[in-house]
Amino acid sequence: MKRKLLLSLGLISLMAIVIARGREAFAQTGISPNQEVWEFNQQFQYAHARMDTNALLGMWSEAGVSLLPETAPLIGKAAVTNYIREVVAHLAVYKMQKFEMTFHDIHVCGDWATEWAIEHQVIQPPDDKPLIDSWGKIALVLHRDGDGKWRVQQEMWNSTPKPE
Amino acid sequence: MKRKLLLSLGLISLMAIVIARGREAFAQTGISPNQEVWEFNQQFQYAHARMDTNALLGMWSEAGVSLLPETAPLIGKAAVTNYIREVVAHLAVYKMQKFEMTFHDIHVCGDWATEWAIEHQVIQPPDDKPLIDSWGKIALVLHRDGDGKWRVQQEMWNSTPKPE
Repeated sequence: MKRKLLLSLGLISLMAIVIARGREAFAQTGISPNQEVWEFNQQFQYAHARMDTNALLGMWSEAGVSLLPETAPLIGKAAVTNYIREVVAHLAVYKMQKFEMTFHDIHVCGDWATEWAIEHQVIQPPDDKPLIDSWGKIALVLHRDGDGKWRVQQEMWNSTPKPE
Repeated sequence: MKRKLLLSLGLISLMAIVIARGREAFAQTGISPNQEVWEFNQQFQYAHARMDTNALLGMWSEAGVSLLPETAPLIGKAAVTNYIREVVAHLAVYKMQKFEMTFHDIHVCGDWATEWAIEHQVIQPPDDKPLIDSWGKIALVLHRDGDGKWRVQQEMWNSTPKPE
């Protein structure tokens, strides 16, 4: 009888774990930002703001895909790396004065996450040319790699009017 | 003893279910296209090709967000509906001759899915004006609603050169 009770308690515990995991999965797919993704977003903005190519590339998945306007899809980290290095080389004499992203609709499901952001950058060109003040949108698919770090699996950008 | 055996078998069955669900979740996050999302994609293309506003809006989630170039985010189905109806009204005298999407990187995680596509449309303007032949990219976040149907939770578009 005692054994039956213990086994029943074992069953109940196991069921409680199953239910708790279900609730956890539900919480992860809700609208509450996941702390890890929030931290990823901070680092992602910071790497752009500093135009820090190495930090940025470290945040890219090996199989990552970049979908930029007027550009064929960049498939894989090698293609993304070439593109980013080329852009940064071209912008060497430009100074990023401001880079801000406001993220929305963060959904986390297991090792996958999606979100989008409004992005605002102010760049000082060389020779005292007028400031470049541009607004854009970005949509990200993130993946948590084997080392536990979230990385860009897919990014897409387009332009947007200055928010009212 | 018999009861203990039965309870043990019950425990093993329950654990088998837990493991099977884990495997199922793993399979869903792999790169194999999910049949339901594949069917959604066929319907999504077909609704665009026919410029069928009602069919298209039926594929939108109530909380869906559309991120179009040079356009502020359209947040919620009502905003998306107004936009699509306006575009279709403007294009009433245009004839869609071709609308094709080639989907890539379909990832399904529970009730969430992500994918992107190269899109090609050929439109005949009125008065025998030259054909409009345009290429674009789209990234979709889909959500399976309570009725079991996949719907657009987020879409983003941008332009792309004609593939080589």
